[in-house]
Amino acid sequence: MQIGVVGLGRMGANISRRLMKAGHSSVVWDASPAATEAVGKDGAATASGLPDLVGKLSGSPRVVWVMLPQGKITESTIETLSGLLSRGDIIIDGGNTYYKDDVRRGKALAEKGLRYVDVGTSGGVWGLERGYCLMIGGDTDAVNQLDPILAALAPGIGTIERTSGREGRDARAEKGYIHAGPVGAGHFVKMVHNGIEYGMMQAFAEGFDILRNKNLGSLPEGERYDLNIGDIAEVWRRGSVVSSWLLDLAALALATDEKLDAFSGEVEDSGEGRWTVEAAIEEAVPAEVLAASLFTRFRSRKQHTFAEKILSAMRFGFGGHVEPGTHKP
Amino acid sequence: MQIGVVGLGRMGANISRRLMKAGHSSVVWDASPAATEAVGKDGAATASGLPDLVGKLSGSPRVVWVMLPQGKITESTIETLSGLLSRGDIIIDGGNTYYKDDVRRGKALAEKGLRYVDVGTSGGVWGLERGYCLMIGGDTDAVNQLDPILAALAPGIGTIERTSGREGRDARAEKGYIHAGPVGAGHFVKMVHNGIEYGMMQAFAEGFDILRNKNLGSLPEGERYDLNIGDIAEVWRRGSVVSSWLLDLAALALATDEKLDAFSGEVEDSGEGRWTVEAAIEEAVPAEVLAASLFTRFRSRKQHTFAEKILSAMRFGFGGHVEPGTHKP
Amino acid sequence: MQIGVVGLGRMGANISRRLMKAGHSSVVWDASPAATEAVGKDGAATASGLPDLVGKLSGSPRVVWVMLPQGKITESTIETLSGLLSRGDIIIDGGNTYYKDDVRRGKALAEKGLRYVDVGTSGGVWGLERGYCLMIGGDTDAVNQLDPILAALAPGIGTIERTSGREGRDARAEKGYIHAGPVGAGHFVKMVHNGIEYGMMQAFAEGFDILRNKNLGSLPEGERYDLNIGDIAEVWRRGSVVSSWLLDLAALALATDEKLDAFSGEVEDSGEGRWTVEAAIEEAVPAEVLAASLFTRFRSRKQHTFAEKILSAMRFGFGGHVEPGTHKP
Amino acid sequence: MQIGVVGLGRMGANISRRLMKAGHSSVVWDASPAATEAVGKDGAATASGLPDLVGKLSGSPRVVWVMLPQGKITESTIETLSGLLSRGDIIIDGGNTYYKDDVRRGKALAEKGLRYVDVGTSGGVWGLERGYCLMIGGDTDAVNQLDPILAALAPGIGTIERTSGREGRDARAEKGYIHAGPVGAGHFVKMVHNGIEYGMMQAFAEGFDILRNKNLGSLPEGERYDLNIGDIAEVWRRGSVVSSWLLDLAALALATDEKLDAFSGEVEDSGEGRWTVEAAIEEAVPAEVLAASLFTRFRSRKQHTFAEKILSAMRFGFGGHVEPGTHKP
Repeated sequence: MQIGVVGLGRMGANISRRLMKAGHSSVVWDASPAATEAVGKDGAATASGLPDLVGKLSGSPRVVWVMLPQGKITESTIETLSGLLSRGDIIIDGGNTYYKDDVRRGKALAEKGLRYVDVGTSGGVWGLERGYCLMIGGDTDAVNQLDPILAALAPGIGTIERTSGREGRDARAEKGYIHAGPVGAGHFVKMVHNGIEYGMMQAFAEGFDILRNKNLGSLPEGERYDLNIGDIAEVWRRGSVVSSWLLDLAALALATDEKLDAFSGEVEDSGEGRWTVEAAIEEAVPAEVLAASLFTRFRSRKQHTFAEKILSAMRFGFGGHVEPGTHKP
Repeated sequence: MQIGVVGLGRMGANISRRLMKAGHSSVVWDASPAATEAVGKDGAATASGLPDLVGKLSGSPRVVWVMLPQGKITESTIETLSGLLSRGDIIIDGGNTYYKDDVRRGKALAEKGLRYVDVGTSGGVWGLERGYCLMIGGDTDAVNQLDPILAALAPGIGTIERTSGREGRDARAEKGYIHAGPVGAGHFVKMVHNGIEYGMMQAFAEGFDILRNKNLGSLPEGERYDLNIGDIAEVWRRGSVVSSWLLDLAALALATDEKLDAFSGEVEDSGEGRWTVEAAIEEAVPAEVLAASLFTRFRSRKQHTFAEKILSAMRFGFGGHVEPGTHKP
Repeated sequence: MQIGVVGLGRMGANISRRLMKAGHSSVVWDASPAATEAVGKDGAATASGLPDLVGKLSGSPRVVWVMLPQGKITESTIETLSGLLSRGDIIIDGGNTYYKDDVRRGKALAEKGLRYVDVGTSGGVWGLERGYCLMIGGDTDAVNQLDPILAALAPGIGTIERTSGREGRDARAEKGYIHAGPVGAGHFVKMVHNGIEYGMMQAFAEGFDILRNKNLGSLPEGERYDLNIGDIAEVWRRGSVVSSWLLDLAALALATDEKLDAFSGEVEDSGEGRWTVEAAIEEAVPAEVLAASLFTRFRSRKQHTFAEKILSAMRFGFGGHVEPGTHKP
Repeated sequence: MQIGVVGLGRMGANISRRLMKAGHSSVVWDASPAATEAVGKDGAATASGLPDLVGKLSGSPRVVWVMLPQGKITESTIETLSGLLSRGDIIIDGGNTYYKDDVRRGKALAEKGLRYVDVGTSGGVWGLERGYCLMIGGDTDAVNQLDPILAALAPGIGTIERTSGREGRDARAEKGYIHAGPVGAGHFVKMVHNGIEYGMMQAFAEGFDILRNKNLGSLPEGERYDLNIGDIAEVWRRGSVVSSWLLDLAALALATDEKLDAFSGEVEDSGEGRWTVEAAIEEAVPAEVLAASLFTRFRSRKQHTFAEKILSAMRFGFGGHVEPGTHKP
């Protein structure tokens, strides 16, 4: 199949490359000419802009994969594309769009006869080689028409042990992609995926923190250990219940920099973590861990919260307690 | 009654003074001669050490109130006193001792015929004037014998509206002191009291933080408010569901320093908050809020946690994300 | 002043009554004729519907206080009123409206020349007697014109101790009402107030739970206490750091029903708790305690969560663990 | 090597078998004759009791692996063994003992000239085939002498991708076992491992709960999805950031019982989860996620908490709110 790809950051560029490796052809464009050219060198047809890109697509339906940061830029790009494409053509949003935006946008495009498919894409910098885990929302017809490129992007069955009991179930899941439901369902599933990811990461982070602080002088003598957490991360990769890709990554980082001095400790968060907590609230589902994981990231980016000062002010008020660092009570 | 008071910090000194104001006599001693002398000037007999203090007590039973930081100093002081006192005498631990230490200590003293009473004491710097809320553990006989001094220390019924439905219940509760149960029960109740205090403080702290950040430039235009949180704290003192002494203290602090610039944001914690969470774990009672309140204080005293660096290391690993402040990935 | 009051539930009816006690006159209407008549008997002029109510208002500007459940009914009522009122008239929304709805609604009404004031109203069933704590959003002129009725509804300075350091600050705060900011600010402050309320309530709830379970047979002998939590709640009302109106209410309930057998344990939540957490997320303010308080309410209304079943399924998967109550693994 | 194994539950029996498969010989005993006989049939020498077991061990040092539930039974078994073994012999505790008990016990045994090695053992029902991830505490000499059996129990390098950058580091970690530190360090690392496991499980549990409830009638139309969570779990196994052994197990369970009706929803917890939170508190390390994961398990085993009733009592008190199911306010 032929596909247009708009947005050639780390993800978009590699998606184009992985498709080409599988024998598909792509027409690519990025606002940065250098980015466009780079993928062009790897075999893609390059476009000079959205109209040129659409003009160079010859199949029917024409398919454009938009891979841009969620928000205004994605919104306006799809808006522009909707004016260039024709009835039956398919726009794919492969970014991290909020699923409620998908629902709204899908309706608007449907009114113009265009089809909209949202694809939650996991795999990061490793996807080019390992394949991308794809969570897809949209009309069944559109998703089926896209099957060749979705199958090519997905990791495939690979060497991962099969799950017994799946006979007769949708075979695509084992190949690393699913049609989750109507428009928005793909990004919704990806959003929750990222929420889970936050929680898992925080579980590891707290655990390693407890291991690392087991040598504090304030602990009772005979109960202090100077633990080698690089080796601990490594050993857990084999036979333990917490073995996981995130652990592999932690082991990799700790193998060469056990103190992680290179990292500032400020941790960013993206929309998905926030939206997942909001979805939990909307459904009245308790989500203590996902929320706490998000809040620790917020906290990591502040010198001190105002909340902490309020605490000290009250403590001074009732007990005359003066905290360290307070310059006057 | 006559009472010996050992430990004349903010709490011990004021307890002596409040007792004397109520007509009781006290013999006092503190490791600091200046502290001893200060209370002596207010009418107490002063002692030169524990033996002298015990020697100056003439009643039967003799009663010594120990008001020292929990831990070794309290332990060794009571150990010494137990060698100076006689069968039937009463040692009161009015500090913030861990109730399991009370249980152990109470047993050991009982073997010597001494009686041990633990008194959880709330009231802080305001207690001298307002009275202390007392939570008492120990044998009924001992607690009853101490009633004159306990009643004198407690706030009394005062002007606080009576709780309907309490007819026929223990009248001491309305006067601000209770006999909670056997040895340890007083400090256990005080411990949970402080756990609750942590949770309430954190609830206010988070709420004021949300109010204060409602003017962030990142919020949608038309939805930003520059709120006067000093006035907000004040207005909630009248007729609102959150009215409380802690709110009074917040209003007081915010009245003169709305930004709380004087406070560093580092918040200490004491044993009670930790022990309360441990008690919850021991009882298998969920205590999300009390635990989270404790953890925010731990976090407040760190520049960055190792946990946060682990998070960044993983994010770099799967997505190539480089956090702000990271000097090399 | 004369005021129209629409919605005569517990809150609306008592607001009318408190205004009349202060010498204001009110014209009232509720969809329930019985509710309308009841307030009529207490001295209000009654209306047969919104047009009749507006027709009976004679001042300029005309003022209508809408006191209805937040959402559709409030929305449509204000919509209807906006067609009946004239340029300069004031609509007050005293309910628990989401502040973003206020912002939107305020803009729409302003285009018609109407003025919109949002009033967060705390005080519940006790407000008639104690007065209502009022948090007000809207244009300064409108709020100033409403001052006589706002002052009448608020508790006033009363017997509550003055906060030192407030000289020269807005005197209304001490009287129990504040002009928090432009449209929406009143409901925003009230929303956060309720979020704090959730956290404080949960702190007490966890604490009492820990006290109550201190008699479990599974605890070590000698460390079990059969605590009288009614007396504990009462004693904390005097001199302790956690003294608060919520504690007064807990003491009242526990005075006559220490086991609280009358209560099912299912706890509802309203919009404010949810919106407060969402506001925290929007501002990137950590709010562990407010979020956890909300989630415990969600959990209280479920027999079991699906999350719990997932946990058991994994435990069975890796360890062969069969939980109690599982009917087949 | 020859090894004695005491305790032949799921773990002990399979450890014996895995050792024998690797060419080691074992002498086994369990309080249940049937359990002893079963492992005997698979090639182990059987003993009739601890003295008989020790008598049948011929090497020097003699080595006994104790694999019993942590607590009294382990304590008394090791106590008995210590009277039967001789200077230089090694007792291994492979169970889930609290590391502080290890420290105490290790000291006591050292005084008798015995050596004590604590081995945290992860792998559950899969260990016989996959091998066990071993975290070991004890003196270096003892651990080195045990190397043949530790290496045999561990999974080995297997097919898992090597972690780059580990050149020159302890090669045992890659083989699935580490010498973590002195006595207690093995169980400490295993304890934190299980704490992390709780957090990861809870992250998945919350995420699947949010997915599953996305079809609630209360959600806005057009934003409800009837998601196939079995397929979602499967797809995440390939190429996604959350791929992990726990996810494999979830996918396995959901493949055949998507509603997990077989599971009651009550989730047990073991000591490690609790001790990990206590370790965090002792180190003043914030551990919101690990604590919340533990608390959700506590909550899962209760019909309702007393905390929830307190909440309702307060809500009734200030607002007259009557919760569903309340039989009288």
